[in-house]
Amino acid sequence: MPTPPRRDLAIAEVRLTPILVADPPLLNTQGVHQPYTPRLIVEVVTADGTTGVGETYGDTGYLGLARPFAQRLTGRQVTDLNGLSAVADEVAVDRTRAGARLDMGGLRGVQTADKLRLSVVSAVEVACLDAQGKALGLPVHALLGGKVRNEVEYSAYLFYRWADHPEGVACEKDDWGAALDPEGVVAQARAFKERYGFGSFKLKGGVFPPDEEIAAIRALAEAFPGHPLRLDPNGAWSVRTSLKVARELGDVLEYLEDPALGTAAMAEVAAGTDVPLATNMCVTTFPEIEEAFTRGAVQVLLSDHHYWGGLRNTRELAAVCRAFGVGLSMHSNTHLGISLAAMTHVASTVPDLHHACDTHYPWQSEDVVTERLSFEGGRIAVPDAPGLGVTLDRDRLAALHARWLADDGTLRDRDDEAAMRVADPGWVTPAVPRW
Amino acid sequence: MPTPPRRDLAIAEVRLTPILVADPPLLNTQGVHQPYTPRLIVEVVTADGTTGVGETYGDTGYLGLARPFAQRLTGRQVTDLNGLSAVADEVAVDRTRAGARLDMGGLRGVQTADKLRLSVVSAVEVACLDAQGKALGLPVHALLGGKVRNEVEYSAYLFYRWADHPEGVACEKDDWGAALDPEGVVAQARAFKERYGFGSFKLKGGVFPPDEEIAAIRALAEAFPGHPLRLDPNGAWSVRTSLKVARELGDVLEYLEDPALGTAAMAEVAAGTDVPLATNMCVTTFPEIEEAFTRGAVQVLLSDHHYWGGLRNTRELAAVCRAFGVGLSMHSNTHLGISLAAMTHVASTVPDLHHACDTHYPWQSEDVVTERLSFEGGRIAVPDAPGLGVTLDRDRLAALHARWLADDGTLRDRDDEAAMRVADPGWVTPAVPRW
Repeated sequence: MPTPPRRDLAIAEVRLTPILVADPPLLNTQGVHQPYTPRLIVEVVTADGTTGVGETYGDTGYLGLARPFAQRLTGRQVTDLNGLSAVADEVAVDRTRAGARLDMGGLRGVQTADKLRLSVVSAVEVACLDAQGKALGLPVHALLGGKVRNEVEYSAYLFYRWADHPEGVACEKDDWGAALDPEGVVAQARAFKERYGFGSFKLKGGVFPPDEEIAAIRALAEAFPGHPLRLDPNGAWSVRTSLKVARELGDVLEYLEDPALGTAAMAEVAAGTDVPLATNMCVTTFPEIEEAFTRGAVQVLLSDHHYWGGLRNTRELAAVCRAFGVGLSMHSNTHLGISLAAMTHVASTVPDLHHACDTHYPWQSEDVVTERLSFEGGRIAVPDAPGLGVTLDRDRLAALHARWLADDGTLRDRDDEAAMRVADPGWVTPAVPRW
Repeated sequence: MPTPPRRDLAIAEVRLTPILVADPPLLNTQGVHQPYTPRLIVEVVTADGTTGVGETYGDTGYLGLARPFAQRLTGRQVTDLNGLSAVADEVAVDRTRAGARLDMGGLRGVQTADKLRLSVVSAVEVACLDAQGKALGLPVHALLGGKVRNEVEYSAYLFYRWADHPEGVACEKDDWGAALDPEGVVAQARAFKERYGFGSFKLKGGVFPPDEEIAAIRALAEAFPGHPLRLDPNGAWSVRTSLKVARELGDVLEYLEDPALGTAAMAEVAAGTDVPLATNMCVTTFPEIEEAFTRGAVQVLLSDHHYWGGLRNTRELAAVCRAFGVGLSMHSNTHLGISLAAMTHVASTVPDLHHACDTHYPWQSEDVVTERLSFEGGRIAVPDAPGLGVTLDRDRLAALHARWLADDGTLRDRDDEAAMRVADPGWVTPAVPRW
């Protein structure tokens, strides 16, 4: 068979569509989720008319970088991924301003210009992989070296929550009800298990005093014996409190996630307990790895392909973890079907992904794909269709974009502290350690 | 444009062709290169008739694993690369015997069953990437995320050598002449620069007492002021000798390569000098990284895609090095055009490859590709044709295979000690440290 000529997969257009998607009143140590959260949908269109899609954080700082970045991509090949970071680097951004707008994102670890850049690059990388896959007739996992499993396991992501956003706030309703004590958490877990079949549970903590959260985990352990459990207070605890929780829950925890803030504190906790520590806060960029790994601060790294810079960087992160005997799992922030598909593809290619991945997906009632991904037994089947295997729903995208356009700016940057202030005017994000 | 159906790139056949290629009488601390050295050429043929090629070590231990491994690959997709290692693992090999056959390969670092397995996998991975690229119309670098440079720089690989193999030994002749002292080394370097334009020079040391090799490097520094210089005694020196050489040559060395054997000794040397230490001996597998990096034993890692398991693993190794601030360059053993093309493709995709790569290629008068790769200014232009951009010369392949078939077994395993014994019947590979 004659060799085909060098393939031209040039980028003709990059479309950016900021949207606001409904988010339930999920509580965390900084406050509560807003009724709508910003996301950015990226479309990469090739010269031959193939369109690939990607998704990332949509706060204004990301948009400010994404726009000039997108303009520079026209004419590049969709296979030209290693150079994306350098292009993003060339884009002049007011890094100080971007940093200032984004440091509220403490839940995502330290916010730096580099991480913002990588989060934007990630959506373009995913869109380019989707376009490549569609153009070549290959699923994204094949472009990443092939899946090593047919399903990817996810964990139920339990939250303390109110039944509704504060009265008078425009929002979408859901039927989950409140969960503010051990009974509520167990009821939520049961619903998760019934609806999606999840076999492991993570509770977002740092909301109530540690004893109450310990009681919630104990209640989960009794209700679901043998199921892996995780607790994540987002760095709200002191080293001493972290060690106390580890002592009290050591027999039932799969891992403790970011009990204390920063590598030094995490290393101190790790030195005092056998409970593995996981993080998506003290190690969220490659330069943070060396100190954390050499100090033994982290036993499980929770990757997030958005802020690590894409699916290929996620695989490289997996390689670094593998070389240092650190486990790998996946972090999740509010996201839609495009990112869930992307997570599923890359997760299917990493041999030693031994923990179920986090996902907020069940909390999202809205999406921009025509057919939502579904969990069976807590797992998502790895799509084998070309590209990511999802199709953009242009009507839904337009509707969610219209919501973003209509917003006066108050919701265009996620701000859990401000959202909490609507219910509690005196609320200030507590200093860390809170307990 | 409608999305094409899921592409079928199934492997229909894997062909293995062991060959013997001419090798000049290059000296090292273990002995001398044999007149012919074994290599294994791998062809992966897809159901649609596309053929991809790969190349690796060809000693009998590699062949013993490659044969059953190849049989298991039929029906797999050429995109299914992440699973190759597991397939190789499933192949029952007599690991003890394989290990025993291969521990002569001390120049390649510790020989383990894992490394043997990865060396075989690498040739199949490269062949699969070549086949994919040809089938999809994409160069291999595009399958690795795209090149970030158009040329890859290589270093002149200088050797102490005899003009000819010992009298009476069947061999191919070359016109390089002997190099056994500083003048000979400088003359060789001049020829390298004239013929290929190399801008940096590496001398394979460990052959003569350190003072003679120091004199050779000094002579090179005088003849080629400002050119990066490297010296590699393959671990032949004690820590004390290594530090003495580092002191005497610190002003002209780009790095010192494997002065002493093993991570502990390298760490001791590194602690006593500012001269960067490079290795392709104490870190040749992922499990060896943690200790070496945390002890600061290595400042530049010389990857070899053969024993690291392929081009994608090489990129992962680059990521690990990047995260720990360790430099990356490339090691070379006797190889042909297929492997040089593979090295060039992967090197073109690694942003922080800041050192010129090693290559034995100029020493090889024989090849299995129709058109040999050529150096311009010490650089090779990154091929943009689909796949690796090389074409197998079936006549040459058959001739070199016929030589392998005709051999009575004495040359089918590289053995520099035995080759030296032909000239010096009393020769035994010296114990380390030799000096």
